Amino acid sequence: MKNLTLKDIAKALDISVTTVSKALQNYPDVSPKTKKRVKEYAEKVNFKPNSFAAYLRTHESKTVGIVIPRLNHYFFSSILRGIITEAEKHEYMTFILCSDESYELEKIQIERLINKNVDGIFLSIADKTHDLGHIQNIIDKETSLVIFDKYSKLTACSSVVIDDQKAAYTAVEHLIKKGKTKIAHFRGPLLPQNSIDRFLGYRKALDDYGLEYDKDLVFICDDINDTEGYNHMQTILDEKIEIDAIFAVADLPAVGAMNCLLENNIKIPEEVSVIGFSNWLISSLITPSLSTIDQPGELMGRKAFQVFMNEREMKKKKKKVEFKKYEIETTLIERDST
Amino acid sequence: MKNLTLKDIAKALDISVTTVSKALQNYPDVSPKTKKRVKEYAEKVNFKPNSFAAYLRTHESKTVGIVIPRLNHYFFSSILRGIITEAEKHEYMTFILCSDESYELEKIQIERLINKNVDGIFLSIADKTHDLGHIQNIIDKETSLVIFDKYSKLTACSSVVIDDQKAAYTAVEHLIKKGKTKIAHFRGPLLPQNSIDRFLGYRKALDDYGLEYDKDLVFICDDINDTEGYNHMQTILDEKIEIDAIFAVADLPAVGAMNCLLENNIKIPEEVSVIGFSNWLISSLITPSLSTIDQPGELMGRKAFQVFMNEREMKKKKKKVEFKKYEIETTLIERDST
Repeated sequence: MKNLTLKDIAKALDISVTTVSKALQNYPDVSPKTKKRVKEYAEKVNFKPNSFAAYLRTHESKTVGIVIPRLNHYFFSSILRGIITEAEKHEYMTFILCSDESYELEKIQIERLINKNVDGIFLSIADKTHDLGHIQNIIDKETSLVIFDKYSKLTACSSVVIDDQKAAYTAVEHLIKKGKTKIAHFRGPLLPQNSIDRFLGYRKALDDYGLEYDKDLVFICDDINDTEGYNHMQTILDEKIEIDAIFAVADLPAVGAMNCLLENNIKIPEEVSVIGFSNWLISSLITPSLSTIDQPGELMGRKAFQVFMNEREMKKKKKKVEFKKYEIETTLIERDST
Repeated sequence: MKNLTLKDIAKALDISVTTVSKALQNYPDVSPKTKKRVKEYAEKVNFKPNSFAAYLRTHESKTVGIVIPRLNHYFFSSILRGIITEAEKHEYMTFILCSDESYELEKIQIERLINKNVDGIFLSIADKTHDLGHIQNIIDKETSLVIFDKYSKLTACSSVVIDDQKAAYTAVEHLIKKGKTKIAHFRGPLLPQNSIDRFLGYRKALDDYGLEYDKDLVFICDDINDTEGYNHMQTILDEKIEIDAIFAVADLPAVGAMNCLLENNIKIPEEVSVIGFSNWLISSLITPSLSTIDQPGELMGRKAFQVFMNEREMKKKKKKVEFKKYEIETTLIERDST
């Protein structure tokens, strides 16, 4: 059977949709007679007000949207899990859109979410996003915005992030304390702030411990995958570049580097130590297990949703919302690779 | 600035929401004068019809919903990627809900999706779902339903699945052809059909090749994780059960078993061969790399969306939709663990 709508009832009773909606919601400007007629009919046909009617009533769609740059990516999946679990508790439904790191797609997707009247948007800015006008556009509407993962300079919204520089510093400091002095960095692409910040953390740790920075020990992983890690390690071996440790921008390049080391019978951690970043499931399951920085995605997702709910409450109470940067703690996870 | 709605325009012009909507859509039963008035005002205030208006016009919400039993799970993430990528191409937005393998939650989530007027629902039935009444409920509505991953006996909807029994047979046959005769099976829980089918494929391969089935070589992994695989392998060693190969219901228990073997200096594949199921990213990255059955999640997701679109087209043309079971091919991936 087709879902009955307000429109169907309006048609059957030959009155306007608005009148039907108001009658069902007991608006005072609908006559008792009409109310009775509408309600009796609605009961007869087993009408259940759908979400549109609820929206008209509350001006809340009870939906939120998430725009992430990648799907099938352990860290982003953890964040989704955090947001969706929290949303479920509050009976919110969640649209997921994937920008594939594209600025154009991100822009269109945000417009579509606004057009769907979502109450909030959770965004991890795409690597290729060079302009924040479309994000400003959310801020100008009633929709709430929470930025996560990547820090941005936008001030009129809250963000849930980690301190990438500090976390990277901790990772490199850990290698130095293990006696390593020739530490390579497999960094991320040049533009994204988190990739820059991890690089800066690496440099700062070298500086603080009196180790010289050598740009020839820095390799770029544009896609942040295992193959890049493998290939960079192979280059290091082929070109006989002397290193005794690697700090990788993420776990996958670290795993790739480790596989290259294992194939070349180079001992981990004795000859070359490896530390990753993010604490993907894989890092605990490989042999030797990979030391890394735990970046708690699920917690970040939960926090982002809580921030959204709090700001929503403030808005309802007509109180001024204060935007903040919420920092989630990261932890050094020491395993066999260091 | 607040998003202007049809309601705002109706209020400003002191006419009904329905009239505004009809005027903007050029309905013949609205006078040219009113149409002009509404359109001029809409242009003046830069009104963009939102998705509700579009829904009233087309009776399509251009949204679909996915209910999966687990998030942050490589295989389900691949399916999401497939569905969302295909949905994006057709400008559909996707709600994601996670049932956490709970029947109750699955039921509520499906009701909420129907209430949101989604055009289609993609469902991987929860392990704990014992009754299909709520699914029948979708079929009785206009919403399209596509079942994926787990096969069900429902006949009034299409499904996109793999042939689990055949795929499991291929895996075990591979072990037998490598000369293995004492093959343990780390199986999934007792109820889900895919877990049963993989077990049946294991038994059939043993039968066909004249190997005796020994129930003491079958171990249950209720959560299908690496710890269970590790623990079962430890039990086999502790109890000195003689085996020369393992066929695991999924890659994670296989990886767990491999880690236990490595720790005990048991040679893989010479002493014990291991084969998994699903081809998670991890299976190619560990050492030795894990042989497995490739279960192409992304392809399954894409196919599911295409099936939905085709059925939708048929319905629009008032043609009878023929429900089918679409089988996605699986492939044996031979790596170092066998």
